[in-house]
Formats: sequence, C-alpha cells, structure tokens
Amino acid sequence: MPTDAGEIEAPGGAARVVPPAGFDAGLLTPVSTGTAAELSDAAIAGALVAAEVGLARAWAAVGVAPDTAAAEISAALGWRGPGVPCEWTELPLAKLITGAVAGGNPVIPLVGILRAGVPEAARPWVHRGPTSQDILDSALMLSARAAGELLAADLRRCAESLTHFAREYRDVPVAARTLTQHAVPTTLGLRASGWLRGVTRAVERLDAAVAQLPAQLGGAGGTLASFVEVGGPDRAAALPAAYAAELGLAAPAAPWHTTRWPVTELGDALAQAVAALGVIAADVATLSRTEIGELAEGEGGGSSAMPQKRNPAHSVLIRSAAIRAPQLAATLVAAAGLAVDERPDGSWHAEWPTLRELLRLARGAAAHARILTAGLRADTDAAARNLARTGGLIVAERLALVLGPVLGAPRVRAIVAAAEDGAQLAALLRAEPAIPAAGIDVAELLDPAHYTGLAGRLVDAAVAPPRTHTEDPA
Amino acid sequence: MPTDAGEIEAPGGAARVVPPAGFDAGLLTPVSTGTAAELSDAAIAGALVAAEVGLARAWAAVGVAPDTAAAEISAALGWRGPGVPCEWTELPLAKLITGAVAGGNPVIPLVGILRAGVPEAARPWVHRGPTSQDILDSALMLSARAAGELLAADLRRCAESLTHFAREYRDVPVAARTLTQHAVPTTLGLRASGWLRGVTRAVERLDAAVAQLPAQLGGAGGTLASFVEVGGPDRAAALPAAYAAELGLAAPAAPWHTTRWPVTELGDALAQAVAALGVIAADVATLSRTEIGELAEGEGGGSSAMPQKRNPAHSVLIRSAAIRAPQLAATLVAAAGLAVDERPDGSWHAEWPTLRELLRLARGAAAHARILTAGLRADTDAAARNLARTGGLIVAERLALVLGPVLGAPRVRAIVAAAEDGAQLAALLRAEPAIPAAGIDVAELLDPAHYTGLAGRLVDAAVAPPRTHTEDPA
Amino acid sequence: MPTDAGEIEAPGGAARVVPPAGFDAGLLTPVSTGTAAELSDAAIAGALVAAEVGLARAWAAVGVAPDTAAAEISAALGWRGPGVPCEWTELPLAKLITGAVAGGNPVIPLVGILRAGVPEAARPWVHRGPTSQDILDSALMLSARAAGELLAADLRRCAESLTHFAREYRDVPVAARTLTQHAVPTTLGLRASGWLRGVTRAVERLDAAVAQLPAQLGGAGGTLASFVEVGGPDRAAALPAAYAAELGLAAPAAPWHTTRWPVTELGDALAQAVAALGVIAADVATLSRTEIGELAEGEGGGSSAMPQKRNPAHSVLIRSAAIRAPQLAATLVAAAGLAVDERPDGSWHAEWPTLRELLRLARGAAAHARILTAGLRADTDAAARNLARTGGLIVAERLALVLGPVLGAPRVRAIVAAAEDGAQLAALLRAEPAIPAAGIDVAELLDPAHYTGLAGRLVDAAVAPPRTHTEDPA
Amino acid sequence: MPTDAGEIEAPGGAARVVPPAGFDAGLLTPVSTGTAAELSDAAIAGALVAAEVGLARAWAAVGVAPDTAAAEISAALGWRGPGVPCEWTELPLAKLITGAVAGGNPVIPLVGILRAGVPEAARPWVHRGPTSQDILDSALMLSARAAGELLAADLRRCAESLTHFAREYRDVPVAARTLTQHAVPTTLGLRASGWLRGVTRAVERLDAAVAQLPAQLGGAGGTLASFVEVGGPDRAAALPAAYAAELGLAAPAAPWHTTRWPVTELGDALAQAVAALGVIAADVATLSRTEIGELAEGEGGGSSAMPQKRNPAHSVLIRSAAIRAPQLAATLVAAAGLAVDERPDGSWHAEWPTLRELLRLARGAAAHARILTAGLRADTDAAARNLARTGGLIVAERLALVLGPVLGAPRVRAIVAAAEDGAQLAALLRAEPAIPAAGIDVAELLDPAHYTGLAGRLVDAAVAPPRTHTEDPA
Repeated sequence: MPTDAGEIEAPGGAARVVPPAGFDAGLLTPVSTGTAAELSDAAIAGALVAAEVGLARAWAAVGVAPDTAAAEISAALGWRGPGVPCEWTELPLAKLITGAVAGGNPVIPLVGILRAGVPEAARPWVHRGPTSQDILDSALMLSARAAGELLAADLRRCAESLTHFAREYRDVPVAARTLTQHAVPTTLGLRASGWLRGVTRAVERLDAAVAQLPAQLGGAGGTLASFVEVGGPDRAAALPAAYAAELGLAAPAAPWHTTRWPVTELGDALAQAVAALGVIAADVATLSRTEIGELAEGEGGGSSAMPQKRNPAHSVLIRSAAIRAPQLAATLVAAAGLAVDERPDGSWHAEWPTLRELLRLARGAAAHARILTAGLRADTDAAARNLARTGGLIVAERLALVLGPVLGAPRVRAIVAAAEDGAQLAALLRAEPAIPAAGIDVAELLDPAHYTGLAGRLVDAAVAPPRTHTEDPA
Repeated sequence: MPTDAGEIEAPGGAARVVPPAGFDAGLLTPVSTGTAAELSDAAIAGALVAAEVGLARAWAAVGVAPDTAAAEISAALGWRGPGVPCEWTELPLAKLITGAVAGGNPVIPLVGILRAGVPEAARPWVHRGPTSQDILDSALMLSARAAGELLAADLRRCAESLTHFAREYRDVPVAARTLTQHAVPTTLGLRASGWLRGVTRAVERLDAAVAQLPAQLGGAGGTLASFVEVGGPDRAAALPAAYAAELGLAAPAAPWHTTRWPVTELGDALAQAVAALGVIAADVATLSRTEIGELAEGEGGGSSAMPQKRNPAHSVLIRSAAIRAPQLAATLVAAAGLAVDERPDGSWHAEWPTLRELLRLARGAAAHARILTAGLRADTDAAARNLARTGGLIVAERLALVLGPVLGAPRVRAIVAAAEDGAQLAALLRAEPAIPAAGIDVAELLDPAHYTGLAGRLVDAAVAPPRTHTEDPA
Repeated sequence: MPTDAGEIEAPGGAARVVPPAGFDAGLLTPVSTGTAAELSDAAIAGALVAAEVGLARAWAAVGVAPDTAAAEISAALGWRGPGVPCEWTELPLAKLITGAVAGGNPVIPLVGILRAGVPEAARPWVHRGPTSQDILDSALMLSARAAGELLAADLRRCAESLTHFAREYRDVPVAARTLTQHAVPTTLGLRASGWLRGVTRAVERLDAAVAQLPAQLGGAGGTLASFVEVGGPDRAAALPAAYAAELGLAAPAAPWHTTRWPVTELGDALAQAVAALGVIAADVATLSRTEIGELAEGEGGGSSAMPQKRNPAHSVLIRSAAIRAPQLAATLVAAAGLAVDERPDGSWHAEWPTLRELLRLARGAAAHARILTAGLRADTDAAARNLARTGGLIVAERLALVLGPVLGAPRVRAIVAAAEDGAQLAALLRAEPAIPAAGIDVAELLDPAHYTGLAGRLVDAAVAPPRTHTEDPA
Repeated sequence: MPTDAGEIEAPGGAARVVPPAGFDAGLLTPVSTGTAAELSDAAIAGALVAAEVGLARAWAAVGVAPDTAAAEISAALGWRGPGVPCEWTELPLAKLITGAVAGGNPVIPLVGILRAGVPEAARPWVHRGPTSQDILDSALMLSARAAGELLAADLRRCAESLTHFAREYRDVPVAARTLTQHAVPTTLGLRASGWLRGVTRAVERLDAAVAQLPAQLGGAGGTLASFVEVGGPDRAAALPAAYAAELGLAAPAAPWHTTRWPVTELGDALAQAVAALGVIAADVATLSRTEIGELAEGEGGGSSAMPQKRNPAHSVLIRSAAIRAPQLAATLVAAAGLAVDERPDGSWHAEWPTLRELLRLARGAAAHARILTAGLRADTDAAARNLARTGGLIVAERLALVLGPVLGAPRVRAIVAAAEDGAQLAALLRAEPAIPAAGIDVAELLDPAHYTGLAGRLVDAAVAPPRTHTEDPA
C-alpha cells in the first residue's frame, strides 16, 4: 500500500509539508503540456516576482518611491521589462511551492523571500500596500497574456494553412454529409473555409480578451486605502495605470477582485478556440476513417503491429481537448457568479488551476492543430469514389428541382426510387425524351461538380481578409 | 404505478405519439418561467412561421418570386414585420408539436401545415430551397434576439437602480470582508459600484452578441446550390442578406450550420449576465443574514410561522440561476466543438433546449434582479454596529502603516495584540505620547470613514457613463 | 418587438404575474418530451398533493390524527395509493403555477388551495408540521421514482433487444476500429455485448438509486420539533417511516435538507444510463455512414428531397442527450456541495428544474434507444466488404505473431509493407515455402473470422444473466 | 515576449520536443497538490511499469510464460507486489515523458525502455499481446486504487472527528438558518451529524467504487485474439483474472475499452466526497463570519496586517474544490458517452488528466477537511448570543403551535407582531393569564433548548455505526 508521502500543513501552523515526491511534466497530459513553458510553475513564479517588482517600479513612476529603490529591486530580482516574467536565478522555487501549498497562497511566502533578496534600503518598497490577490491576479494576467499571444500566433498559423488548403481545393467536389449520410455535393474548399471562419473568429475574440487583461491593484478591501495612506490620493489614483504599464497589461478601471469578467471572457475565448479546432478535428477524424479516406494527417500515427492504420493522432488529441475545455470554462463562470464579499471564500482559489489548465489545453490543441493543418493531405480520388457511391443520387435534390417542372414530380420520384433499387440512374434519365427536349444535358445534370452552388464564391470570401463576420441588415 | 402515457414514434413511421398529458408552465421553474413568453412553444412556432414567410419575401425581394406570392403568403400566415413572430391564428400548435416530437424536428411537419394554409399559386414559394436547419436556426435567432433585447432592458434597469444606490450610499462606511472576515473599511457605495460594473459589462457583451445574431441560409449542404438552381447564382448570392433583412437579423457571412459561434457567444454572454447578477445576489443574501442585517430585499419573502424571517427570496432564486447557467453555456460550447460533417449527428439537436433554457434562466434572473435592485434597502445603523464589532481593529492595517514609523512596528503589534485580547484600542493609543507629538489624531485614525481610500472616486467613475472598461497601457 | 407578456411578482407582494402566454410541450425538446407524462406540471402537482395527503395519513397511522380526518382528506384530494400522484380533478393548476412563479415555491400556494378543498374538521391535518421542502422533496422523489421505474423498464427492453442482437450476430466478423482506423477483426456480437454490458450496469445503478429514494420529513429546521410538539417525541420519531410507507418511498434515516446524496446519486445514475445509450448511438451513427453501411436503424429517417439518405435519427437524438446529460448531473452535484445552513440559499432551487430535465432526457433517450435496438439491422455483406478493404492487413497483427517465429520478424514486415504498397498479401504469403512447412494454412491465417479471439465466449458471458460485473482478485 | 520553449512533435515523426522548462508541483494548486504523491508523474510511471511486469507475471501464472522470465522481469524492473507501483530506479522518466508528449501516449515509448531493461531471454514476455490501452488503463486503476484508499482513510478520520464533535455538542442549541435567516432552534450536534452522514455515505460509495476498479486486458480490438494466439483460448481466458490478481485489482468481466463505468462511477464517488466536504466547509465558512462567530477553524489563517481576521482557510480551499469537482466528473461522463468504435477517437484521452486531477482534488480536499474537522472549535457563548438575537422569536413557530389553541391564532400573531416591533416577548406572554392557566411555563416555552425536537435522537443515530442509510418501506 502506498504511504501518504505528503502531509498538509494547517495554515498558520508549523510547516509539515513534505515536498511532492514527483512532479507533472506531461505523462498524462499529452495535449496540455509540453508546449506551454510560459505556464510552468517556474514561469508563474517569475511572473509573481515581476508583479512585485512592477509595483515598486510603479511607486517610483508616480513619484512616491525613490528611483534608486525601484532600480535596486529591479536589478536584484531579475526584471526584464513589461510583459515578461522576472528571471531571478536565486528564487528558491521548491521553498516557494512548499509555502504555497502550506498556506494556500503563494504570495505569502513570496514576500519574505523577495525582501530577503533586495538591499535593505529598498526593502520597504517590496509589496508596499497590495493584498496578495493584487499580486497573484496581476501575475496570472501577465502569464495569461503571454500564453494568449502564443496561442493566437498558432491559431493564425492554422488559419494560414487553412487558407492555402481552401484555395487549393476550392473546386474539388466532395459529398456533403448531414446526419452522417451523403446529402448533396459540396467542395473540399468550402469545408475548409468553414473551418477557417471558425478559427478566424476565435482569434478575433482571443485577441480582444487578451488585450484587455488588466493589472489588479486594490489593496485589502479594494479601496486602495493602503496606497492612499502611503502616497496620498492623487498618486494612489495614478498607481494602477502606472502598474499596468510596467507589467504590459491593461489599466484596470477599478479593482476587480470579485468582478471577474476579465477571467471569464478569456476563458470563453479559450473554449471557443478549442471548439473551433474541435470541428476541424471531428471532420478530419471522420474523413480519415478507413472506409472514407478523403483526408489524412500528414504524419499519421502508425502502429508497428497494425501497419494498415493511419491514426489521425492530432485530431484525436484535439478532440480530447474539445471534450474537456467547456467544463473548464464553465468552472470559471461558476466561480465568478458565486463570488461574495470583497474577496471571496473559495471562488477565487478555484480559478487559478482552472485558468492555467484551460490555457494549456488551448495552447496544446492549437499546437497540434498547427501541425495538422500544415500537413493535411486530401485524397481526391477517394473523394470522387465516395461521391459516386450512391449511383448519382447525391444530386437527387437537383433532379427534383430541375426535372420536376419537365417530367412532373411523380415521374421524378419514380425514377429516383428505381435508382435506389439498383437501376442505373443515368440510363433511366436518358430514356426520357423530354429531358433533351428541354435542353437539359443528363451528364451535366448528374455531375456533382455542377451542383456545388456558391461554394467557390464562399471560399473566395472566406480566404480574403475578413472585415466583419456579419453585416447589419439593411 | 404510473403508466407510460406517451409513446414515441419511429421517425418516418406511423404516428404513435400521444400528446403529453400535461405541460410545463413554471411549476418547478420559478426562475426561468413566467417572464419569457417570447420563448414559449407558441412564440417559437410563430418564429418558425416567420422564418418560412421571410424566405418567400426574400425570394421576392431579390426578384425571383412574384411579389404577389410573397404578399399572399405574408397575409395568409400572419406576417407582422421584421423581428417578430408571425401570428397565424390557425396554426395547429398541438399537431406541430406532436410531429416535432415524432420526427425529431419541427420543420418537417411545419412545411406541410404551411403549404396547406396558403393559396395554391403561392405554394411553391413556401420552403423554397432551404434545409430544415435554415428555418429552425433562423427562427431561434429571431426568438433569441427578442429575448436578448428584453433581457438587456432588464439589465439596464438593474444598472440604473444600482447607480442610484451607489450614489446614495457613496460615503457610507461598511466592513470590507475577505475570506468571510472583516478586513478593512470600504463603502456601501463602492460595493454597489462593483455590482454595477459587472452588470454594465454584461450588457455590453450581450448587446454585441444579440446584434450579430445572423439568419441562416445554406440549403442541404451549405452551398446554397438549391437556391442557385432556382434563382441563378447572383440572386442566390443576394438571398441571405435579403432574408436577414426580412427577419431583422444580421446577414450571415456564410452558412454556419457547423460554425456555431453565434450561438456560443450568445450563450457566453447570457452566462456572464447571470454571473454578474449572481454576485449581487451572493452579497445581498450574505449581508441580509440575521446576524449581519446590513441589507434587505425591499419585499423580503416572509413566513407566517416564522415572522422573524426576512428571506432574501430574489437573491436565492438568482443564486440558483448562477449555479445552473454555467453548465448550460458549457453544453453549447461542447456541442459546437463536436460538430461534424455539413450538419452534425447530435450537436445541433443538443443546442435547442439548452439555448432556450439558458435564455429563460437569464431572463428570469434579470427580472428578479430588477425588482431586487429597485427595492434594496440598507440599514446603516447595522453597518455601523458591524464596523465597530472588532473594537477598532478594522483599521489595524492603517495603524501599521501610520504608526509603524512613529512607534516602531513591534510596539504597534504589541498594542494591536493587546486590543485583540480585549483591551480598549483607543485608550492604548491615547496612552502613547508619540502619537499626538507626530500630529496624529487618534479619533481620526480609528474612524473607519477615514480609511476608505479612493472609494468615493471609484464610485463616481462607475456611475458615470463608462466609455471602456479597461484602458490600454501607455 | 415582442413585449414582455409576463411580469414577475415581488415575493410577498401583490400578485402581478400574468400567466405565460404559451406552454412547453416538446417543440424544441424532441428527446426529453413526449414520453414522460409523469413529469409534467400536472403530474408533479398531483405528486405534491399526494405528499400532503400522505402526511395526513401518516399522522393517522402513528395514532395522532383521527382516522376520519385522514380518510376525508384522502377522499377529497384524489388519493390513489402509495407511489402515485393524487388525481384531484378540482386542482386549479394554473393558479398553483402562477403562485409558484410568484412566490418561488409551489408549496406555499398549494397549502391554501388544499385546505379549502377538504372538510373543515380535517383541515388542521393538512400540512401539519412540515416545511415546504418536506413536501416538495417528497413529491419530487415520488415523481422521480415513477420516472425511474419507467426508465428502467425501457432500459431492460433495450437490454433484451441487445441480447437477441448479440446472440444473432455472435460470430459475424467485423472490423474492430481504433482511433477511427481498422485494427483487427472483432465480431458484431461482441460489439453489441459491450453495449449490453453498459446498459445492464446502468440499470443496476438506476435500480439502486431509485429504490433508496427517501421521503423527506424534518420540519423547519430539520429537528422535527414541530412534529414533536404535535405528537410527542415517540410518535414524531415514527412519523418519517410511516410517511415514507404512505408514499411508497424509502424511510429516511434523518432529514436530508442539505445532505443531498439521494438526489445526486440518482442524477449520477441517470447520466450513466444516458452515457451507456450514447455509446450505442455513437456506434450506430458511425456504422451507418454512407461509406460504411454495416448498421441501419430499422426505420431510418428519410428525406423526400434526398432519398439516398438513411438518417440514423434515433442515434442522433440519443447523442444529443449524451452531450447534455453530464452537465445536468454536474449541476446537481455542484448544488449539493454548495448547500449551507439548515436549508440553503439557492442550491435547492437549482435542483428542481435540473433533476426534472435530466429525468426527462434519460426517459426520452431510453425511449428512442428501445426503438433503435428493437429495429437495428445489420448488413453483413457490407461488414464483409469493409473487412476486406485493407487487403488482408486487418490480420497484420496475427501475421506478426504467427509468422514471426517462422519467417523472422523482418521478413514479415517486408511482406506486410509490400502488401501496403498494393501487392496481393495472400500471393506473397503463398510464395513463402516455410509457411506450409510449419503447418500453417494461409487461407485460415488470413481469414478474419479465425482471428476473433474470445469474442464468442465474451458474448456468451454477456448475454447470460450477469451475477456481478467484477470479481474480487483471488 | 516569451518565446515558445516547447515544440510538439508530429506523432510518428522525428522527436522535436524540448522538455518543459519547468514543472508543476503545486504553486497554483494548493488544494490538489502536495498530498497525493501517489499521483505524481513518477508514481504513475511506476504504475505503468507494474502494469507491464504484472502482465508477464500473469502469463507465467497461467502457465504460458516461463516462471524464470516473470521472475527476471520482476527483479529487473522493481516489482514490489500487488497494488503498488514498481520502483525501477533506472527508469528514464524525462525520456518517457518526452515520448509521451510526442506520441500522445506514454506506453509506446515505455515498451522500448522496458525491453532494454530486462535480460534478453525475458524480453519477449514484456508487453506480450496487449494494446497500449490495456497497460494505461490498468496502471491508472492501480494508481486510482491507491489514491482512493488514502482518500477513504482521510474521510474516515473526518468522520471520526465529526462523531466526537457531534457527541460533544449533542445538546448545544444553535439557530437553524434557512434561506440565510434564523428559523427555529437546532443543535450544534445535529448540524455536525448531518455533515457526518454525508461523509459516511461518501465513504461507502467510494469504497464500492474503488473495490471494483478492474484491470484492463483486451488486446487491440477487445477480443483478446493476440492472447489466444500466444497461449490458446483457455489460458487466454484465464489471463485477465490472473493479471488483475497480480495488480491487486478486480478481475474484469470483459474488456471495457469503451464501457467506461468503472471510471465514471469512481468519478461520481469522488465528486460526491468533495460535495460532502463542501457542505461542511460552507457551514464553517459561514458560521465563522465575524458577525456570527459560532465556529472557528483550529488554526485559522491569520494576517499580520489584519490581526482581527480568523480566515477559515481550510474551508475556503475545500469550497474551491466543491466548485471545481462537478465539472471534472462531468467531463468523465461526457467522454464515456461519446466513446465510439472499439477504442475511441478522443474520449479516452480526455479521461487521463481529468481523472488524475479529480483524484488529487478529492485527496487535497479531504486532507484539509481532516485538519479542519480535527481542530474545529465551537464558541457556545456566541451561539447563545446569536440565538437570542431575535428576542425570542426563534421559537415563534412553537408559540403558534402551543399557544394557538390557548389564545387563538389571531392573539398569538398580535403578540408576535408586537415583539417584532420591539416589545419584550416574554413580558407580553407573562401578561396573558391564560398561559399559566393552561399549565404552560413561559420560560420553558421560550427556551430554544426546549424546542430542538428529535435532535438528540438524530445525533445518537448518526454517531452509531450506521447499517444502512435508508430502510425499505414496510
């Protein structure tokens, strides 16, 4: 029986925590780990340091702290500029983590560690006035911004690949399937342009959510009273924007300790991005089935024992993300809607791991999608074979529309029914003299490539740089 | 043992469905029913009729259908203009519902019903070209737009009430609570202005999501091929925008049968609105606890047997919505990310009831919140009593900041510790001659109203018409 | 613009509610409506009446109320015995619903209605002692028990159909697919027996959850103090079991106003049942794809315009339920874990509509699954064609195992690679003299029907009445 | 701007993965990390090794593999017996993780690593016959069993503490609160016994779910064909039970690659456990509010700046778990219900991180709850003060029941109303001569301790070893 190697501390009591015997680096999280170094514990710790250094710098920027204090703190703690975590090589990460697990919050142990790391004269300007949520929220937003920008970059690469793909296969007819059944023809380009629209929209939403990620600065009760006490009201009022500028974040309109839309809107955008990729993965997984074979991932996962397999491995992993992401985003919204008081009794703590995992999951899904979309291969022969599988009935809707007025609807239905029972559709139609008499060419009529509607135009519109996704009604 | 009164039909087979013995009108859904008549089965049926009539009108608008056909159809089926359901008094709703349950889709029985209801000459222009998803999506968007606008109106009324409340109590000090404990002072106005910011932001997002709700028009495979066959490519290309104009919806950039961000973005906005109201409800429920008593709902639910109760009944119902809404929104996102093919094999069907219930839930929560915020009463005596409960320690943070430089941190800590053990804080401070020597007035120092930081300014900013919620970093 | 037809009342204030303009009977809920009359508002109202009548009867059963009072109340209010709702034809349902929406709870208006409906002498024994949650919880459990039993019956019918199907196709080889790709052979019977195992297990869990559904009886604070005041401690102690007996429910060990496992365990069982059906639906939808065609629903949904379609309509609707159910169950668990005080401030109200919708969804999914499994058709020719699609490579794993020791692994890999590139696998093997020398018959080796392992035995075990699903390790 | 340190590989392609720059050990997961070393990557890797070694041992146990091979493999790879991970000190964990991230599955790189680690003669018996899901599922079940047993042990310790607490405070009256308002009296012991019932039930469910966790053994298509090929049908049929015995798991009735109730039932039990703890945390957080103060965590988290705070830190962290757990469990159910084919295209991969995080979260919540319940302190003076806050109206329900027959209901209501308006309730009652005339003692009548119903009996029943939680109706 495994023994309980860890022992949790009573917060406030003596440390009884044994550091975890192992760590997580991706053994069970192939999607959400491995690409998102900016979300590792080390990176988050660097962001926490940056959130503290940034505050000292902001105090200087508004003219309260001496410039020398800010400069000394910056130099001592590895400041590298707005939007990036500090690189303080002496940060005792294991000690910080142990303290975080013990106290339920990483900021409490952090402050002592940082103060010990700066010259004594600068020490009063470390953690001057904030509550721990100011620091942790700001650090998470800094990390989220970095992750969000990397994610957006991957999504843009997906969009580029999809644009090329949609252009290349703009006019290749394939079966449109509805409720799993062949319905009418469409084109491979149009299918890809639908994927593209989803990804493009997700990038827009993500960009907006990332650009608005605010710094947090409110003090213990969200009034900034401690900052006013230190610097007076005017400089305290200027502090949040100065702080945000140091961290490369948006200036908050007010403290948002319990007004969590910056977090939930980001979560919504992340889930939307994963859903957009999920649609691609669902189609690729389906269309690369052994019996369908219209699409294949560029480097399909193989099996030495079963060489006939062309596993759509990226699609499978992306689909696993599409199953998980909505619940993670929902947890953020649930936490937001249950927030109470000036700082809540559980909601906030539920956010940290959830937001990080959702960011990672989206990052991983996009990394897989980037490879998938770059390498996606189409088998147009298979597409043609599949189109032909219903003996021409894929254009049955067209026959009703075109031949109804010529032969009458009952006659058209009878022909189609005969074809369903195995008769040759083309032959049946050629036996109808009224058809050529109406100037209708049977071969053209039955050609799926001639019943793809506006597919080409829709592809062209999708691959052009979109202005807006909807237009107002006139 | 109850017998199974209903019997479901095999789709395509003979009707064996017994109409439901009862109906739902709110017995178990006090939050989500009663306010949203625009989402009843009757109203949705009217929207489905409007989606069909609108299509005939659009065919005429682009010059393909005769104007007389469109006019006849409009007259026969109760057309009332863009954005509103048709009022066709002869619609056999029970028959439609029975067919919808039997066939898994209300559009299939609808078409036959409508064709029978229009003059024969106009009949070909009923349901000319679309797939059932075109009609149902468009009808749902029409209904969602109506519900969304009513919801936004209620949220705006909440925001107005909160604005008044925040102004009225701008400077009333109350205890800021963090992790359930008194922390430092804040003001009641600032608390309300946080609620206001949440609601205001939710309205902005909702407005954007509602304004972009698009009509759907793609035909069986999303290529508009059937429309091209009927009207030629140019008129088919003009048809979606014309259709959207008839319905008062946004013109779709392309068919979105499996690109479901219009639905998920609306769902996200609805869940965000409920979460914003949930925060208000959490605070009101907490602060109206018998022991706290700082707030009370205007007409608290009472109990004849327990007259001392002042149940925060609106808050309770809003909180129940805040627990439910995130999972409903997540279902929409999950469905969106699992969509496959040109029209999917389950995802779409999962949307209908989920979106409707989420709309209703948000509508109901906002209706309750409208009443709650309009009638909210504050007990400033109770607030003052509560502030005094810790014997002045509510400003302990201030003491450390102000007296630390004067007395030294150890001495301040000793005084505070003595106060914690029951000594009179004011008396202890008055016994320190260094304090008046430093020009510090003990009474002012201990007055919670003098340690509310920027609360007043933050209220003023919140109640002014906000331009943006975040500002870009310099 | 639709106007807001409903107007919600401030609880406790004057009624300002306009009854809903319409009602819900299934227009947008093809899965969850139409089969579950026992969950309609009318049926739930009958259960509420039964919960009140049952209490009067229980008071008599423990010797406190006069038998005549219980008999008069029973007669007046349509009592029909344990486990069934009352049928009181004079119940003013619309008034009850209006009051429920207005007050946030249907029990408050109910009591007045019922008291007015019974003879004056019996009146004191209507609603004697309970809190509204006692009545509503008991009524919901009564309704849930009825729904659960009907659900279990449908699941058992599914299991019977699957048993027949698994037996019939016990030895029909089909391709086993993993990650969408043909892997090795299996049998159609084994696939169906996996479905069967899932359904059988779900029924066991459902039966257990339904059998334990308890009556609720605790009074305002869960102490039964009001009952003690009326009947003394011993009779009050006997009352809950007597009450449960009247209602056909399990006797509660204690009041469970905030100990909600009876509800969440039922929710878990319902979601498990839907998931078990979801697996069937996922397989049927996939295997009835136009290109695969191994399975077809008995009465596939058709399309007049696209006669080639064989929509797996039941599967699509069941899949939509599988997407929705987990979030509904999660809402119940979330509500349970947030319960506070003796009766909570939102959690309980979140349960009512959620539990009802989850019950309905499971009922609807099972009704569809009953028809699906009863009519499911297999196309063994298509299965054979699909098995042959990889030119024999479906048994590549077997070749490695059997021929590795004979030819050496490199040679086997070379042969398989040649077959992948298009060479005839059988011919390549027949060219290897070592194979017959080892007593191996190439035709047998390549026959998928000879590489199905223990499929037959596993089917036999599954279709036999299972004792337990797992056995303890020795 | 952070650069993208990780680079994901195309499965099957050349390794391009840079190991993660950091690792996760709890910085942002104070609840779910630190206590669950059995779920670290290192521990899971050891379980994977055990799953492979156990298979070799099972082959020997059924008489197919030589005993020497099994012994050599056991010795080489750190076998320690059933139910515990292997401790193979030479396992290259980083390489394994890198391969897992690259290939989307840790088993593929594992097999090569293990084969290289055993003597050549034993090598063929490493990974003989299974599919990677057999190994990973078995390893996860082994890890889950270990975690589940540790969790159950912590829950039992909670139950013991709650038993002591309930006994100690069996008869201490406190206010029962409903919808946040004082309702009637209850006892602190009864409140705790409700917590106890929830925890006890959760342990029962958890024990059942853990005891049934099965080994997985089915081979590529779930037919065990590869095992039959190696060992013949009878020994292949015996293999799963032998394998399960080696691993200390339940013998599977059949392969469960897509029949995932062992996973979802565990997930349900975990979420139920967290919910049971969540109720405790909700009550403790509420009742330790500054204004209420009836309960306090033994070692409340403090604040140097705000010494008056007694943060209910364990409760806050447990509540954060209660907000998160339901969505994690829902993800498992959603994945289960979407499973398709013989091994699915995303569902399975969604399980791994979700199950691990849910296990961790429950472990962490229980570790906090163990400390919380062991140290929980009650302030009975505060409880008495709170009970007195409504001036005796806490027994208003009793007044109606007892005095109604004596004074008439209108007179009782008038007295209560006067008391609500500030009059002394006891004085009003003493002014009524009919009360003593009826033999009623006013002091007794108003004493909350005399209106606690069956609270004491219910406590006694809860703290006795429960047999069953419900009883069947007679």
